Amino acid sequence: MTLILALDFGGTKLAASTVEADGKEWLKHESELSPDPGDALTDLEIMRWLIEKVLDDKKPDAIGVSFGGPVDATTGLVRLSHHVPGWENVPLKQILEENYYAPVSIDNDANVAAIGEYRFGAGRGYDTFLYITISTGVGGGWIINGKPWRGALGLAGEIGHTVVDPRGPICLCGKRGCVERFASGPYMAQNARELLEKEPRNSGNKVRGDILKYLVNNDLNLITGKIVSDAAGYGDELAQQVLYQGAWALGVGIGNAANLMNPQRFVLGGGVTKAGDNFWAIVRKVARETALPEVNFEVVRALLGDDAPLWGAVALGLDVLR
Amino acid sequence: MTLILALDFGGTKLAASTVEADGKEWLKHESELSPDPGDALTDLEIMRWLIEKVLDDKKPDAIGVSFGGPVDATTGLVRLSHHVPGWENVPLKQILEENYYAPVSIDNDANVAAIGEYRFGAGRGYDTFLYITISTGVGGGWIINGKPWRGALGLAGEIGHTVVDPRGPICLCGKRGCVERFASGPYMAQNARELLEKEPRNSGNKVRGDILKYLVNNDLNLITGKIVSDAAGYGDELAQQVLYQGAWALGVGIGNAANLMNPQRFVLGGGVTKAGDNFWAIVRKVARETALPEVNFEVVRALLGDDAPLWGAVALGLDVLR
Repeated sequence: MTLILALDFGGTKLAASTVEADGKEWLKHESELSPDPGDALTDLEIMRWLIEKVLDDKKPDAIGVSFGGPVDATTGLVRLSHHVPGWENVPLKQILEENYYAPVSIDNDANVAAIGEYRFGAGRGYDTFLYITISTGVGGGWIINGKPWRGALGLAGEIGHTVVDPRGPICLCGKRGCVERFASGPYMAQNARELLEKEPRNSGNKVRGDILKYLVNNDLNLITGKIVSDAAGYGDELAQQVLYQGAWALGVGIGNAANLMNPQRFVLGGGVTKAGDNFWAIVRKVARETALPEVNFEVVRALLGDDAPLWGAVALGLDVLR
Repeated sequence: MTLILALDFGGTKLAASTVEADGKEWLKHESELSPDPGDALTDLEIMRWLIEKVLDDKKPDAIGVSFGGPVDATTGLVRLSHHVPGWENVPLKQILEENYYAPVSIDNDANVAAIGEYRFGAGRGYDTFLYITISTGVGGGWIINGKPWRGALGLAGEIGHTVVDPRGPICLCGKRGCVERFASGPYMAQNARELLEKEPRNSGNKVRGDILKYLVNNDLNLITGKIVSDAAGYGDELAQQVLYQGAWALGVGIGNAANLMNPQRFVLGGGVTKAGDNFWAIVRKVARETALPEVNFEVVRALLGDDAPLWGAVALGLDVLR
């Protein structure tokens, strides 16, 4: 039996799984929230403990790792984590190889999720697609000719920071009108809050934003992307406007990427994509209108959900054995 | 001696050249304007005559072809020409192979120019870049990992039709605010005309647009992209505004492409890039601001000028011999 160990250093969550080389289900699976505030050493210690539990005294034949931050996939050196301090220049591949006597392959979470969808999910049978995750941020990973395309510096896939409205609101990155500025969960919540603060007071009739305010008991700080999406589903027009803007931005970003790269598919995952059929319809319509008429593509749901990085890590582990 | 025959079906111009396998200069070179109105048969006849002149009774060992329109690079079937009627589904590769008893490789002009710059121009030593031509239209060709990336349907590289301003003017393709709508020569001319028509009359003082009007003797229909660029160089503020918008749009398109694909370089050719240092400075500045800070790249001039398609055709011919 060939045993693959798959690890996910997710920023907020750590997870470890084992699977047989041709397995479709985990043999063992363990996960733990990352402590907050935490650091690289604590993460490594927790992961060591999770690994011990899933390995159960067995030796892995290969290890695949998804890391939530920029990684040099060739050397297996972590550059940094955007969430957890202390990860600067940690030789994670080397540490794991020395501890578990097995070959290790590492990549960042967006690329690994793309690889997971390619081998086990919505990318099966398609050798050219962009995986996009829309949740706390908007990130992406390319599969081109059946292989991850990481870019010259390992930074490709940043569809979240392509500009779709140069007169739009300012994004964390400093620019105006990035896809992420409209479509990420936290920014949708912020956009809803700002609109609510500008909205005229309720004068007896039902007004835009009422359902949204009801859902958070009038405490606007409690609004999340998920709640905006729920309120939109219940018919709140202000929430629908915010969700529409997010879907529109994502659609323009996808259409632009289609014109530029002409992939077969766009595979969309992450919490925001649970927003319902209307969200998907707008994304698809705007993407279609933005791409040239002859540039055909599909926009489909990711199939692996939160497990995409772990399944991608399995694929990395399998590849290292070849 | 290994003899390569390079052909350029350019839409407005037909050209044929011969070169030795390791040659850096044409052995023979002939070109002819395409008749207007013309058709595919006439183009083929003129090309046959040019080929006869450059071959001079010799037999080519391989033929490379640049075609100004969508081509299936695998089968060598021309899909159509956007300029010349009658090219629909012409098996150009087959026709040439049967006539000249040599292997033939064909691709569209943007890809072939990218290949030319890769092998003989500004892309030498860089295995990942986007070649962009900014002239009558704005098109592009990718080199990824040292090979042309054509996309799933052979339609990749359309940076000209990525949207940079969703509230911008309407482009030929039907969308608002494409890169091409701001940056192509004809659209810059149109934008200048429209601004001039809105500009207040000259009341004795020097006003915006005066130099531009002087250059065309007040006949606004004579304005071209080149003249806008000249007027900007002479200090005409209206012309500078138009040129700035074009450079800005191109800069946003390049920055977005950098975030999405993280190539090493952008290689820019075509008439509009002769617009002077100020144009280049704006393109570079806006591209730099649009890309994420860590996404590094260079924006450089194409080196082969109008000969890029022919030199790319030479590279295609050489490749077919391997």
